[in-house]
Amino acid sequence: MVQPEFRGAIEAGGTKFVCMVGADPAHILAETRLPTTSPQETLPQVIQFFKPFVGSGQIKSLGIGSFGPLDLRPDSPTYGWITSTPKPGWQNVDLVGLLKRELDVTVALDTDVNAAALGEQHWGAGQGYDPILYLTIGTGIGGGYILGGKPLHGLLNPEMGHLRLPHDRSADPFNGVCPFHGDCLEGLASGPAITKRFGLPAEIIPDRDPFWELEAGYIGSALTTFILTLSPERIILGGGVMHRSFLFPLIRQVVREQLKDYLQHSLLTDRIDEYILPPGLGDRSGILGAIALAGQ
Amino acid sequence: MVQPEFRGAIEAGGTKFVCMVGADPAHILAETRLPTTSPQETLPQVIQFFKPFVGSGQIKSLGIGSFGPLDLRPDSPTYGWITSTPKPGWQNVDLVGLLKRELDVTVALDTDVNAAALGEQHWGAGQGYDPILYLTIGTGIGGGYILGGKPLHGLLNPEMGHLRLPHDRSADPFNGVCPFHGDCLEGLASGPAITKRFGLPAEIIPDRDPFWELEAGYIGSALTTFILTLSPERIILGGGVMHRSFLFPLIRQVVREQLKDYLQHSLLTDRIDEYILPPGLGDRSGILGAIALAGQ
Repeated sequence: MVQPEFRGAIEAGGTKFVCMVGADPAHILAETRLPTTSPQETLPQVIQFFKPFVGSGQIKSLGIGSFGPLDLRPDSPTYGWITSTPKPGWQNVDLVGLLKRELDVTVALDTDVNAAALGEQHWGAGQGYDPILYLTIGTGIGGGYILGGKPLHGLLNPEMGHLRLPHDRSADPFNGVCPFHGDCLEGLASGPAITKRFGLPAEIIPDRDPFWELEAGYIGSALTTFILTLSPERIILGGGVMHRSFLFPLIRQVVREQLKDYLQHSLLTDRIDEYILPPGLGDRSGILGAIALAGQ
Repeated sequence: MVQPEFRGAIEAGGTKFVCMVGADPAHILAETRLPTTSPQETLPQVIQFFKPFVGSGQIKSLGIGSFGPLDLRPDSPTYGWITSTPKPGWQNVDLVGLLKRELDVTVALDTDVNAAALGEQHWGAGQGYDPILYLTIGTGIGGGYILGGKPLHGLLNPEMGHLRLPHDRSADPFNGVCPFHGDCLEGLASGPAITKRFGLPAEIIPDRDPFWELEAGYIGSALTTFILTLSPERIILGGGVMHRSFLFPLIRQVVREQLKDYLQHSLLTDRIDEYILPPGLGDRSGILGAIALAGQ
């Protein structure tokens, strides 16, 4: 039997760091969750978790999917840093440099959504498809796009959450919550946008509330744009808001209506329920994607 | 001296076929323009043009940038066909099959805009950059995106011209001319949209007409979306409407205002005049791109 190749993986989020040692979803050696407090407190705990696996020679590489913004330009002097994040204490943290120094492993860093997209392409709903798009709709909205097996970076990381959408203020006078753009996609449809509309957490808005039609309209409208520009073979929607699974058929319907049969492909018409999908890895796309990232 | 490697190139358009034998912009052996009438009439003339160069062994490959829609899925039984085009007589024409058979050369086909994008990356304003986006704004609106030196296809060719935009009907009550979507980007901002608005050809609308602010608004709004999704290193705007060069500064201003400094890169702020550019190859991006395509 061939021994699976273990790797270290970190999903660095605003509230917790998930750390894992594994080879794939079926071969996981160890896992822990650490609260995201300050870099001075959290990062030493992360290092402590991985040290024994490095010492024993079980892992030689580490993949990180992280909140951002991140500097991912390989030729930049601040490559591998968390840069201008609003999260207190985490500005200008040299994540890659620190972990490389302390653990003496190769370190691959990407955004949380790119890692999740990679995880879904390796072992989830995107398996066998390329390009794919993974979109998370939760505290924020962000997209990861994988083409040729690699996350798209380009000039900067794509910031799909800040897409401007048609916004009919007579049907929906809500101004949005994005501090930069007001009523961009994230401003209109993220978890905090829902909370602001209702003055109540999104989780307790009932399924039958007519608001969800509006929510599906914004998400569907964004997906139409992503289809026209990125032409993914599959779209995967994750994040807290998408736990409301009744949103999927509503969103698919919006996309069909907006494309109006212009693009001739059965996946965009009759078979759209095979095209716009929940994550195959549930809430583990990101951490498992970090394992895939470590192998690149 | 090394002999340049000559290739055949076709830019297949709705009104003319440009045919060329060349190696690069500085080494062009022959060129002709043939009117696009019927396939029975036009294609034999195309074959006639290339035959002597094939017979003499000067060209072994042919690149085609064509109007569409095209079937570009390599595993499809109708690969290389012009499919459901509205152009009379040109539906279901096996362009690649015919030219391969008649000329006995390798044939590479892509959309007209992907060919133009490739031309600009090889020898024009996109030289040295990747990914790049080329957008043509003329009779139609279409985009070609090159990543890793190759045009993006995905599930279908991207159809960026049919992007839905914020459309404030109190500022602009025009319904748009797209038969599929009404007021999508092409419906609002293409040459035919301008002609319909004014009842006059776009060419004779004076530079000082306040309409151009609206036109720049729609184009700029679309570019903002493309930046947030595709993150190109350079954007090149070609096509008849963009011959109005005063549009460039207006469009750049719209993009700056819409991004609101959210994306921190000097190319999107102070240096935006180096970022959104006219084609380096003028109106020859497409035919020269077909030469590049033949070499892939």
